[in-house]
Formats: sequence, C-alpha cells, structure tokens
Amino acid sequence: MIHLAIGKTIDYEMILEDILRRREFFVIGKDARRVDALDKVLGRAKYTSDYLIDQMLHVKVVRSTQPHARIKRIDMDRARNVQGVVKIITAHDIPGENQIGYAVPDQPLLVEEKVHYVGDPIALVIAEDEYSAGECVREVKVDYDPLPAITTPAEALNPKASAIHPKGNVAATARIIKGDIVRGMEEADIVVEHVYETQLQDHAYLETEAALAIPEAYSKVTIVGSMQTPFLVRDLTAQVLGYRQSQVRVIQAVTGGGFGGKDDMGPIVCAKAALAAVLTQKPAMLVFTREESFIVHNKRFPFLIKYKSGVMSNGKLTAAEIDITMDSGAYANRAPFVLWRAVVHSAGPYVVPNVRVEGRAVYTNKVFGGSFRGFGNPQIHFAVESQMDELSKELGIDPIDFRLRNVLRPGSRTACNQPLDHSVGIEEVLRRAREKSDWETKRKKSRRYLTKRRVRGIGVACAYHGISTSRGVPDWSSSSLIINEDGSVTYRTGITEIGQGSQTGHVKIVSEILGIPIDQIQLEVADTDAVPNSGPTHASRGLMMGGTAAADASVKLRRRLVEVATDLLNCKVEEIEMRNGEVYVRGNPDSRISFAALAKELYRRGISPAEYGFFSAPRRYFDPETGLGVAYSVYTFIVNIAEVEVDLETGYTDVLRVYSAIDLGKAIDPEQIKGQVHGGIAQGLGLALMENVVIDKGMVMNPSFCDYVIPSVKDMPKLPDPILVEVPYRYSAFGAKGVGEASLIPTPAALANAISNATGVRIRSLPITSERLYFALKEVSK
Amino acid sequence: MIHLAIGKTIDYEMILEDILRRREFFVIGKDARRVDALDKVLGRAKYTSDYLIDQMLHVKVVRSTQPHARIKRIDMDRARNVQGVVKIITAHDIPGENQIGYAVPDQPLLVEEKVHYVGDPIALVIAEDEYSAGECVREVKVDYDPLPAITTPAEALNPKASAIHPKGNVAATARIIKGDIVRGMEEADIVVEHVYETQLQDHAYLETEAALAIPEAYSKVTIVGSMQTPFLVRDLTAQVLGYRQSQVRVIQAVTGGGFGGKDDMGPIVCAKAALAAVLTQKPAMLVFTREESFIVHNKRFPFLIKYKSGVMSNGKLTAAEIDITMDSGAYANRAPFVLWRAVVHSAGPYVVPNVRVEGRAVYTNKVFGGSFRGFGNPQIHFAVESQMDELSKELGIDPIDFRLRNVLRPGSRTACNQPLDHSVGIEEVLRRAREKSDWETKRKKSRRYLTKRRVRGIGVACAYHGISTSRGVPDWSSSSLIINEDGSVTYRTGITEIGQGSQTGHVKIVSEILGIPIDQIQLEVADTDAVPNSGPTHASRGLMMGGTAAADASVKLRRRLVEVATDLLNCKVEEIEMRNGEVYVRGNPDSRISFAALAKELYRRGISPAEYGFFSAPRRYFDPETGLGVAYSVYTFIVNIAEVEVDLETGYTDVLRVYSAIDLGKAIDPEQIKGQVHGGIAQGLGLALMENVVIDKGMVMNPSFCDYVIPSVKDMPKLPDPILVEVPYRYSAFGAKGVGEASLIPTPAALANAISNATGVRIRSLPITSERLYFALKEVSK
Repeated sequence: MIHLAIGKTIDYEMILEDILRRREFFVIGKDARRVDALDKVLGRAKYTSDYLIDQMLHVKVVRSTQPHARIKRIDMDRARNVQGVVKIITAHDIPGENQIGYAVPDQPLLVEEKVHYVGDPIALVIAEDEYSAGECVREVKVDYDPLPAITTPAEALNPKASAIHPKGNVAATARIIKGDIVRGMEEADIVVEHVYETQLQDHAYLETEAALAIPEAYSKVTIVGSMQTPFLVRDLTAQVLGYRQSQVRVIQAVTGGGFGGKDDMGPIVCAKAALAAVLTQKPAMLVFTREESFIVHNKRFPFLIKYKSGVMSNGKLTAAEIDITMDSGAYANRAPFVLWRAVVHSAGPYVVPNVRVEGRAVYTNKVFGGSFRGFGNPQIHFAVESQMDELSKELGIDPIDFRLRNVLRPGSRTACNQPLDHSVGIEEVLRRAREKSDWETKRKKSRRYLTKRRVRGIGVACAYHGISTSRGVPDWSSSSLIINEDGSVTYRTGITEIGQGSQTGHVKIVSEILGIPIDQIQLEVADTDAVPNSGPTHASRGLMMGGTAAADASVKLRRRLVEVATDLLNCKVEEIEMRNGEVYVRGNPDSRISFAALAKELYRRGISPAEYGFFSAPRRYFDPETGLGVAYSVYTFIVNIAEVEVDLETGYTDVLRVYSAIDLGKAIDPEQIKGQVHGGIAQGLGLALMENVVIDKGMVMNPSFCDYVIPSVKDMPKLPDPILVEVPYRYSAFGAKGVGEASLIPTPAALANAISNATGVRIRSLPITSERLYFALKEVSK
Repeated sequence: MIHLAIGKTIDYEMILEDILRRREFFVIGKDARRVDALDKVLGRAKYTSDYLIDQMLHVKVVRSTQPHARIKRIDMDRARNVQGVVKIITAHDIPGENQIGYAVPDQPLLVEEKVHYVGDPIALVIAEDEYSAGECVREVKVDYDPLPAITTPAEALNPKASAIHPKGNVAATARIIKGDIVRGMEEADIVVEHVYETQLQDHAYLETEAALAIPEAYSKVTIVGSMQTPFLVRDLTAQVLGYRQSQVRVIQAVTGGGFGGKDDMGPIVCAKAALAAVLTQKPAMLVFTREESFIVHNKRFPFLIKYKSGVMSNGKLTAAEIDITMDSGAYANRAPFVLWRAVVHSAGPYVVPNVRVEGRAVYTNKVFGGSFRGFGNPQIHFAVESQMDELSKELGIDPIDFRLRNVLRPGSRTACNQPLDHSVGIEEVLRRAREKSDWETKRKKSRRYLTKRRVRGIGVACAYHGISTSRGVPDWSSSSLIINEDGSVTYRTGITEIGQGSQTGHVKIVSEILGIPIDQIQLEVADTDAVPNSGPTHASRGLMMGGTAAADASVKLRRRLVEVATDLLNCKVEEIEMRNGEVYVRGNPDSRISFAALAKELYRRGISPAEYGFFSAPRRYFDPETGLGVAYSVYTFIVNIAEVEVDLETGYTDVLRVYSAIDLGKAIDPEQIKGQVHGGIAQGLGLALMENVVIDKGMVMNPSFCDYVIPSVKDMPKLPDPILVEVPYRYSAFGAKGVGEASLIPTPAALANAISNATGVRIRSLPITSERLYFALKEVSK
C-alpha cells in the first residue's frame, strides 16, 4: 500500500491518480544528494559569523560569577572608558519585557536583581571590535550579596531550603494515573524496583551560538543567526523589544549543529544581538566563545528515576509505578515539556494496564537544562529498558521474548491510555533486529572469556518517541512554493536545517509530487517574513509536519498544472503522468510537454503559480488531573541491539556493533536516515559511556573539548545499515514519521544491558565510565 | 455604487457583505500616511549604496568613446597592473547569453564586436575600491575601426544608409487600419495636417543607477538594487549567467526615483554587478556617476509625427491619418511597446470612425530610448491635442465644446476599435475641469495685454492612458499576505515603490478588507524569492493590478477569519463587521473579539494563516495586420487646463496655474494622487518648456544638472487640488485605475495650446523654450 495522505484538507484523489498508481516512487525511498551538501563541502555555506557587515559592532556579555546572589550594584565607570566601547546595556535599557522564559516567565534576558547560576547574563557590552568588548566586560564590576547555592534537587526539595524562584523550587510537575496501581502490583508475581540516574550532557555542536542583528528602516530589525526555530526567536525578540511579530525578521544562517540546544538558545542569543542593534541603530554581532557556550547554554536535564515494575510469571506486565525528579537548573526553560514527554513515555513501548507516574522538575543553582535530542526519552528509556532486562532475568525469559509479550500493537493503548490504531511497527522492528543481529547465537556466547580479561555481551533496548509537539499544543507546519516561468521552483519552509537533512526530504516530496528533478527546486533559507510560522524544528517533526505542508502546496499546484496539461494534451486528468520534468499522456509517450513549458503556460493563462502549504496534525489532548489522553500524533519505534567487549581489569567498554531497526512510517531518503540513526547512536554512546558536564560549587569544571570528551571515530562501533520498517502514518506525506531523535533513545540502555550481559554487573547511573565499571566489577568480585 | 471587484476568481459575495454594505470606507478614499514616509524623512531608508558589505568589490564600466565602430582589439595589459584591480571582464567571460535586449535581442550586456553609441559598455573592471577601478578603466585601451555614425532617423531611413543592426535600421513597426481613411477624409469639411516633433528627455531621478550583488552558497546570487521590476532583473540576469530564475534572488532597495527609466536600466546594471560577483565570488557594487547616468541610460524616445485630421462642420471627427517615426537610438529596448502604445492612443480619447496609423522605430547611433512616464503617450498627445485646438480654431468652436462633441463615452470604440462598455469618465472630467478653471471667463480675457509685453492665455488638453501591459501580453500580478499570531500582518508585493506610493495603496486595501489599522500591516520589500512574479511596475498598473492581487489574498484570509469569528461570536457570516482591529456582531457592539485574538485562534485551530494573492486582468488581443482589438484592460482619462503668461519680448513663459481633472476609477488615497498628479505636471512642464538632452556627433553635451535643466520650484505653477472623478472599473479592487503617468500626458499640449491662445503663435516642436518662442514671435511680427 502506498500512502500519500495530506491531512484532511485536500481532495487529492483525482489529481494524484498518477502518484497513487505507482508501485515505486521516483525519488521517495531512493538516496538523493543532500541539497546542502555542495555548499558545505565547498566551503560556500554561510554561517552566522561569515556575515560581515561594514561598521558592524560586537557584543559581549557580562556574566555572573556567582551561583546565587543578589546584585547590589553594577559599576560601569571604568568600563565605559575603555576605548572602542559604544554602549553598555543593562536590564533597565530593555524597551519591552525583560523576559525570555519559554514555558514559565522566570528567565530575564538580563538579570536585574538576582543571579541564579554562574554565567547568568547581567549586561551587554557593545564595542567596535571584539577585543575592546572583551576588555570592557572585564572592567564591569558587579557587587554581589551572595545567597546559599543549592546544587542538587534533594537540597532544593528540602522544606527548609530557601526559594530559588519566588514560587518555590518546583519548576513543573506532571503525572499519569491509569488503572489501579495497587491492584496492578498485587496481580504481579514479581515486583522489581530500582533507582536510575542520568547526568548533564552537552550538545557539543560544532558551531557555538551566534547572532547578527541589523536595524532596518523604521522600527524593524533583521536577525541572522544560528538557531532551530526562527519563529520562536522572532516572537521572544519581539516581546523583549516591545515590537509586533511582523517587526522582527529572522533568517536562519547555515547552522552548525543544533541537537535541540539551539532551539532554546536561539532566542536567548538573538534577542541580545537585536537589543544591541536596535539601541545603537548599527549592525551588531554576538558570537559565544567555546568556553562561554559550555558554561552558559542549556544541557540535557539530569534525571533521578525510581522505577517499580510488576510482572506476572507468564511475562505480562501488570503495573509500573514511577517517580521522576528532573534537575531543571537555574530556570524552568523547557522543563514542563521534557518532563511531560518523559512521563508519557515512562512505561516504554509496552502495554501496561496500571500506571502511576509522578514527576517534578526542580530548580537548582546550576546551568539550566533544556531541549536535547530525545527530550527526556533517553533518560526514561534508560530506566525502562534496564528494568525490562532485570524483569526478564527474574522471569528467566529471553529479553526479546519477554519484550515481544508486551509490546504495543495496533489496538493497544499507551501508558496514558492513548489508543494506537495504526502505524505501530515495534513488533516487526524487534523481530527483524533480532534476526539481523543473530541475537540468539551471540546471546549464547556472551560472558565467555575471549582472553584472560576480556568478555563479550549483547544487549537490546526498545524505544518509542511521539512525533509532534507536546501537551496538546496545536501542531501545524507551513511551506511556500512558487513555480517560476522557466519551470524552476522556489521552495521555502520555516523548518530549519540543523544537520538532520529534513529540508532535503521536503524537496524530495515536492520533486515527487510535481514530477521534476530535485535540482530544479531551489531551497531557500528559512525567513520569518517569507513563510508563515512553520512551528519548531524539534520533536523529530521537521519532515513529518513540514514535509506534509510541502506536499500540501505541491498538490495544490499540481492540480492546476494537470488541469492545464489535460487541455494542452487533450486528455483526461487520470491519464496525466508527471516525471523527470516532463508531463505525459499515459500510454502515449510522444504526447507530452515539458514542465517548463507547462509553467510558462500557467503564467500565460494568468493562473496563480504559488501556494502556501499548511498541515495541521490531528488534535491531541490530555486530562491534566490524570495525564490521560492523546499525547502525540503518532510514534516512531526503534530497537537497538548492542554488542560490547569489556576489559574486566580496566572497566573499559569497547562497543563492537550496534544494530538498529526502526519503524519510521516511510523512508523518504534511506541514506540520510542512516546518517541520523548512526549519529544518534554516537551521541547516545557518549551519553552512555563518557560524557558528563562536571559542576562544582555551581561552576562548570570542564568547559572545553579537552576536558569534556565526546566519542571520537575510534570510539565508534561498526554500524550495519539500519533496518527500515515502513508502517505508514495515515496523515503525513507518503506516511513518513520522524527519525531525528529515535536511535539515540535506546542506546544507553542497550549498552547498559550489553555490559550487564557481558559482566553480570548492572550499572544504573550514567555515564558508565571505565572508572565506574571498574569499581563496580571490583565490588562484585569481593 | 461601491465596487470591490476581485476579478472572476473569488466568490466574495457572502464574506464581503460588511464591506459592500458600507456607504463609506474606513481607509479607502481617505488620506493616509505613506508607509515609506517615516523611513525617508528620518533618513533610515536604505538605498543601494547604503548597503555596505565587508570586503565588497567595486565595479566600473569601460565604455565606448565612439558612436559607431568595430572593436579591433582591447588592450588590458596596463590596466591589469593597476593596484587594487581584481579582475577585468569582457564579453568572453559571460557564462550565459550575452544579451540583455528587452523586446529584440539586439543589445549585448558587454559589446564584443561593434559599439552602437558613445557609452556602450565594453568591459567591466572590478577592484578593491572605486578609485582603483576608475584608474583601471582609464588604462583599458580599446582600438576601434570607426564606422559612419547615423544620428537621425531620416539618415537611417535613407536606403543608402548602412545598417546599424544586421536586420536593418527599422527596429519595430506598428499600424492601425480602421474604417476607410480615404472616405473619412472625403467626408470631412475641413482637413488639417501638421508635423509635430518631440525631443530626448532624461528621467533625472535623484538616485543614479546602482546595484549590489552578493554571491550566495552554491550557484546562487542575490542582487540588491535600484530598480522598478525585480522579476525582469531576475530573468535577464539569469539569462546572462546561465542560471535558472530560481538561482537569482532580486531585492529592490529603496529606490530614489524611477519614472520608467529604472524599469529598463535595472537589468542592465544589476546583471553587470551579478556577473562581477559570480565571477569573483565576492560581493560587488556598481553605482553610476551622474555623468555616466546621463550619457548612458535610456531616454524618452523623440517622435516625429505627421498628423492629418478630418472634421465635419458640425464638429464631428471623421478621420485621422497619422505617421509616426520614433528615434530608437542604439538599441530597440522598449521601442516596439512604446510605439504600440502611441499608435493605439494616436486618435486621442475621441471617437474617430476612420483611422490609419503607420509607425516605425528607427535605429540611430545615439543613446537608446526607453520607458518613461507616459510611454509614448505624451508625445502622441502633444500632436493630438495641438491638432484638436487647430481644428476647433478652424471650426470656430470653443476647444472644450469641440472636444465634448467627440469624446469617448460608454459604448464608444477607440481608434483600434476596442469597445468601451464602462469606466469611461472623460466627459465628466472635461466638464468639471472647465467649470473649476472658470474656463469661459478666462478664455474671453486671453491675449489681452497685461503690461506692454505680457499676455495671458488658457489652454486645454485631454488624454487617456491604457492601464495594463501592451500588445496582448498576459497581465497579472501577485501578492503575499501572512497573518502572524499576534495579529500583525506581513504584506509583500513584487510591485515596487519608486516614489509613486502604490504600495501604500496596497496596504490600505489590505487594511480595509481585514478591518485592521494600517500600522498593523508590515510592508516588506519586494523580493523575487518571496512572492511570485508580480509583473512590472510600469504602465500605471501598480495599484490596479498589484492592489487587486492584495485584495485577492485579503479576501481569502478574511473568509477564514470570518468563519472562525461566527463560531466564536455565535452569529452569521453576514452579521460580522471588521474594523479598526476589532470584529463585531453587527448591532451588538459588546459581542466582539479583537483581530489579534482571532488571529491567535486561527493558529490554535490549525487553519492556514497565509495566502498568495493573484489577479489576472481580462484578456486583451489584437490583429497584427490591422492593429484592431482590445488594446488595454481599461483607460484612465485626464484633462489639464493650463494658464500661462508670456513675455513677448523674451519668449519666457510663466505657467500660472494648471487645473487637473482625472477619472481614476476610485481614489484610494487622494493625498497621494495629488502628489502624482502634481509631479506629472512638473515633469510634463519640463518636457514642454525646457528639458532637452543635446547630442552632438553622438555625444551627450549636457550630462549634468547644471546643463540639463529641469523645472525648479520657481518654475512651478499654482496647482489646485485635482478633481477626482470616480467611474469605477469593474475588475479591480474598489474599482481603481492608474494615475502614475496620467497628468504628464496632456501637459505639453495644454501648455502649447495656452501659449498659442496667449500669443497666437503655434509651436509644434518641443521644448517650447524662451528662445524658440522668441524667434517664432519675431517671425510672426515680421
């Protein structure tokens, strides 16, 4: 079955006869060259700091040196006299609202009264060059009245703890109450309870945060920056400047990695540059140093998860009782949404009749957490999937067999009671991963000594991930498509390219529907003035939501083209075939017209050659009391199977191989999906085995790539091509779901399970560094 | 009757109940502040040369010093060694087609073989700064093989003349054959025949030609420039570069005057900058000096018109036989279109049963002619309206009475037999101008001596002007409208602001239809990547065509908003009223919602908040053999009545007063229309009395504002507010037609007729300078 659903908005039956009839597509499902590949390879791609404007000013940020303190006074006398300094801006200079908080209004753009972490921004220095700006920053003297720094959620939750923010130390809560947890646990033959812990992880994007703001004619500012969600940048900057949304134009520069981080940092950085530009009426550039980036920017929220599971001896799960404490750091930022995602997914991709989850995000005086690939799901799946292995061990059932008894299937309901009627491929994903990895053979061989000190193991982990925005927030995306008279096509989306390649997917969708080669489609940069709000680039939604908006515009224009073609070629609508830039009458290849000629004819006849595409996902909702409802539009399912070799004398884990299988609805571009799957495994491996932002007395102790270690090519396992299982989603273009985050999510658990399989030792705190494993092995051998 | 026609594309009946019911509009017909006023007044408007890019290169042009010559050799050896020079480009370096001709492919971007006028571009010099570029230009040595220079159409049409272009010296021809010209002349009681002549006029825009081109990532170039028609710039630049249209992005910078000139010069200048940028892969700026601009850029085509009219003694016109020779200069450029417009309008706004027109445009070795406010119509109307006065004099009928016997009325047919069924207001226009000017009293007093040497006179001239593109070329325009979540609206059109203010008109149309204040609408710059081809900004079509495309988008979005509003306010569609940013239930002012809240709700419900608007004018066509057909969509009618005082001893003409009356369909903004009407009179006065580009041996002799004199504030007459007659056009938004060119067209004839009325002397060659009049008066007094 071939899917090409375009929501409920368009009657596309007739017009798409040709596409729907095909057994195979021309570009969908094939590998294409990424539309951004040449620019990046040839060094022509323009990153923010490649934009050089004459007489541009440079902005630097005066930051808190204290984790928690009141500001008594800011002495700028000496600073003002530094040569080359143009202006110093504090909270008092902000014309609009001094507020950049995403979910909760707790985060000022510039701190006025109280700093909440080391790195909190206090003032902006604007100078003619970077060096003068840097000198000026050093000359701004801030007098503090220090307050006790609270650095752990446990301290923060102590009833005697002082309040970090006026409303107390709990930034957000979320819960699920499904079924009867007491009865569920009573029905269980085995109950297992454990505590899992995860750490602060840095996105480690290649390009640090950067923004250039240019004051335009009367009350308008243009921002060019490194970001994920231009519309969020626009809206929050407008709020800070006291502008209308239409007075802020945001253009995404080529962005050197996002991974969620720049979704949150975009507004924080861009609004500062915009403020500087508007108040000086000169172009102003703000680029973070690497150290500044490490110290200041949002991190992966650390989780503390108490997980209690009940299972019957037949292997059927009866209950899950889960308590989640997230360390939010200095500000709430995305905590309510990350917490919600973790809570919703906290039973894993399994049928669990009775679920009780309580979650909370807690303020501490540390760098704040935020969006990061997986968005709470890597943390919760580390707990779920470690727990699944523990249960299968208790039951004496093979981990995959055990999971297969419980996985979600069409007709199942999730932890928050969401019915899943279609596009639920986890069973096939799991079976195919087992088969391809030769699981049974390898599992039998595990824990055997290869040498005196080296053992091997194999572990599995499943995951699922909701593809859309959270908490019933309406989810839509948009696109713009213009056919030019020469048949070239200009496509634009507000979905950004952050390395993931979803814009290439959009272009392929346009290509497939209009029947023109990919290189006939010019992808234009995301620009908030030239396309309606396309929603954020996060939640793995870029292709599914944005690509369907691309399809919407394409279908509307295709309809017009086909109508003109039937007239020129004297045939019926259902006889038209469009491919490779030519339009044919089916069965009569000589009766044809080129797409370019058809485009010209469209103009000649005065038929509109342009459309804004729009796609609105089916509505989601939830009951805030019980957390039950429809949490996400649809889910991607993934299984990773990891093989490891552990050196028992050093605790060093060598990851040999990671197999991935994924139900992604429809693979728009297998090659790019492979890139996303393998990249996710790399980042998950870092989270699992090595990465950790170390904070001492509120200070980040390892703010450099010397001290904060991410996986290198030498740490990477062999990565067989992922198994792509296509169980299409009914409402998206060609049935595609999202893949950007998926493969990261089960990676830590798969590795922990493989290590446990190899060594018999279970580590429940990330990262599983050599040191930690070494000491755990020592403990066991005592 | 209130009109709000939106072509034939939309069923707007229901949705526009509210608007259609109104007796008066909120903003339409009222004066508004121009949307570009503050930027220009505050000095914030960014003209091309205000765009400063770091490491930008400067381009200058090596130009022909010969009017007609073969290029033997270009010696660049010394030039290449000038310090700071980066590259010198000749025709050989052009990657695409070396062709920038608009209507005829006779004009290379850079001359390879033969130069056709003094100023013809031969090479581009690209240097690090302007001075080095200038020095380099001087060091490029071109060896010529001179050819005889042909400087008048008469020489060019001599059968023995050598061919300036391979196909001969006739660049274009056009004709009308209506009725039987022989019988028409036979039926006449009086036949009058005269020859009229017009000169080269310069646009004299404040800003010279300028373009900045920025090479973008892989095979894309962005152009920011001073221009009228970004899409033409895009298409011709793409042709020169061998790019697709989508690979060239064109943004109009704030433009300091166009008057038609920058419609033609935009591509010529921008393609050069783009070529330099693409070949060096650096930003490149090309700005013409004032002298260069005078020497090089297109001028108003000089006309030689032989005009023979037949009239019966009852004052009814029977025939017009007209022969038009246009001096095209070195290239055809717009000659076929200007010639066509002059031919179509050559009988004036009168019923003439028998018409025969032959027209031709002839190459000469002079600066080429091109688009200029009026586009052939000031020239032909100078002949027509001088002739009408001569006829009325012969008949002994008052000139206005005589015209009233012949003017077009609903049901009349034009010279090319186009039936005019509605929106034909010339009779009312003429009557009201007569009344307001106190014509009869003043006419009686004319020729009376005020002092020994000063006499007064009053003269009238009518005109009409087709509002749309010429020669059956399909005419459409487009727009883009995005409603943001805060209720602010982003509007964009490819119709450019060149001083005329039509974009403000568009914004008012959006404001009226959406019921929001003008300042809630952000007008964005014209950008070929962000709006479909909107057609050119010429032919006074900007408001009528572009404004109707704005209405199209507005109506589509209004429909969606109204639908949501009826749901929220629990009322029927026809009960909704939208005004001043609020949406009401009619008769129940408490039941309302703000536009901003409605916009937010649109997003919440996932309804597309954006539309591309499109308007396609009713089809026009003509028979190339006879010239008969439907030449233009609709016509604007105008009458100027001029009062002059002539010094008989010096020939100096003091223009005392010019009354204007105009049928413009609907006055969208009376204040701006006043500006256009008065500006047109000023430019017409310059054409009539003083302006003249003097060419000697192919050289422009007066390339500066010292030597080329345009009217100053001291030359300007009193200008009473124009009389606005609203006879709406059925197919445009609110019934508006165009006003940009109208008032210039009858100005030379009105002044010539007033001078004739004052002095008894008829001057048939423009400009009627003091010298020319002095000698003519002397001749008469002999």
